[in-house]
Amino acid sequence: MSGASAHPRLSLNQATVKRASLQEAVDAARSAGITAIGTWREPVAEIGLESAVRLIEDSGLRVSSHCRGGFFTEPDPAKRQLVLDDNRRAIEETAALAAAGALGSRAVLVLVAGGLPDGSRDLVGARSSVADALAELGPFAEEAGVTLAVEPLHPMYAADRAVVSTLSQALDLVAPFDPKVAGVVVDTFHIWWDPAVEASIARAGAEGRIASYQVCDWLTPIAADPLLSRGMMGDGSIDFPRITRAVDAAGYDGDVEVEIFNEAVWSAEPRTVAARVAATFAQHVPIPVSA
Amino acid sequence: MSGASAHPRLSLNQATVKRASLQEAVDAARSAGITAIGTWREPVAEIGLESAVRLIEDSGLRVSSHCRGGFFTEPDPAKRQLVLDDNRRAIEETAALAAAGALGSRAVLVLVAGGLPDGSRDLVGARSSVADALAELGPFAEEAGVTLAVEPLHPMYAADRAVVSTLSQALDLVAPFDPKVAGVVVDTFHIWWDPAVEASIARAGAEGRIASYQVCDWLTPIAADPLLSRGMMGDGSIDFPRITRAVDAAGYDGDVEVEIFNEAVWSAEPRTVAARVAATFAQHVPIPVSA
Repeated sequence: MSGASAHPRLSLNQATVKRASLQEAVDAARSAGITAIGTWREPVAEIGLESAVRLIEDSGLRVSSHCRGGFFTEPDPAKRQLVLDDNRRAIEETAALAAAGALGSRAVLVLVAGGLPDGSRDLVGARSSVADALAELGPFAEEAGVTLAVEPLHPMYAADRAVVSTLSQALDLVAPFDPKVAGVVVDTFHIWWDPAVEASIARAGAEGRIASYQVCDWLTPIAADPLLSRGMMGDGSIDFPRITRAVDAAGYDGDVEVEIFNEAVWSAEPRTVAARVAATFAQHVPIPVSA
Repeated sequence: MSGASAHPRLSLNQATVKRASLQEAVDAARSAGITAIGTWREPVAEIGLESAVRLIEDSGLRVSSHCRGGFFTEPDPAKRQLVLDDNRRAIEETAALAAAGALGSRAVLVLVAGGLPDGSRDLVGARSSVADALAELGPFAEEAGVTLAVEPLHPMYAADRAVVSTLSQALDLVAPFDPKVAGVVVDTFHIWWDPAVEASIARAGAEGRIASYQVCDWLTPIAADPLLSRGMMGDGSIDFPRITRAVDAAGYDGDVEVEIFNEAVWSAEPRTVAARVAATFAQHVPIPVSA
């Protein structure tokens, strides 16, 4: 490990080094002085949960979240059951990984709502499927000590990935649950454009719902694959100080994940990426060292 | 002219037949039995306003709107003055074309806010430039009898085209003006994803602000050029009955424009496109024959 240091609340979300194994991602984070990681299910599955847990224990890193569950809009009952079962496994993984992480780890499972079912135009119905799934998973999550974190995705994904598009909508969805059981993800990429962004972040804080804060930049033009249109902080249009001040003022005291889906970032060497994440985070994201 | 007939409130927005001259667009509309047209500045400029006015008079078509003005976020004072002057010309064109149109024409100028200035991340500042420009143009529009219609664009255009992203935000922007002077455009493509879409349309109606209703579909995946990702009604994810019922219930009694930016549509023969517009409109957009 180098003597590099990074912001003490910075977490490297594994999606930012998508092609690295969990071990490589951990090594990359540590080499840049980053002290927390946001894990993803696929690289955990690659080595098995037990090995992943040992690896996290040995790493000394905090776990800031586990990504991701959700995709709740499947209408076929049998397939829907498979989805819910898979989400229960994701909840168990989240609890195990958070318990293995260093002090300050959070058992937070990030959830993506899912898009319109094939051929459907029924947004309202799809949204109520999401509410139903949360109701079904809530008691299981509570038992496991895991917070289900609903992530509103940018409205450009409303048809195919997430029928939950704004922070305000996500807050309405989780309102029936205890804040320990269900919260929301504030991700700059998805919500920076929202004229109500500051009011919604303040509301999320007042209601105790900010389960995760994720940052990355908005690139223009949009990438040919819109999923990969995220950039390193400073490379795009997002006013990180404005949103970060709102998140801080809302009382959020957890880690801040950098989650970048970007082909050029994925093609770079993971340690190089982690170092750049640490540097651009320090430069652009003014979150206090402690809340 | 054929004996084709179309919905009596359907209007062909010229952007749907982008490569046609105004004369060709008029002919295409009439050939499909469409009785109204939404004009664009570029094809009007191509033949000159006087010729365009005569052409519209001769056509027997209603003019449902003129597209478009706006782009108010230019920070350089000299350039900003040029933009405002150009918008004054657009207002004059709108008045002249609407006066030339058949009974039921509306003097409505569609406005696109403009994106973030080059290198800027100041959404809040850019939005206040839009408010300032409206304040400057309002008296001129009132004098000309033209309604300035602010069109919220889909949030995926917030960086580069429009810092006004939701209907609710557009309504707040126009609130200081008489509804005859400033209203909003309800365009399905831009707002279909909004969890508050029905409430915002109802509010727009209650406040007398719906200056234009435009329809086209949302295609997935998003086109390589996101500006061209619009589809013919029925080809995408939008629930037209739901939004159209809301617009009707809000008291909108004007024409409904079909405005499609799509390379395949642009490459087709204008009369073929107009016929398909009339057919898909009849099939998918249940607006009453009279409000």
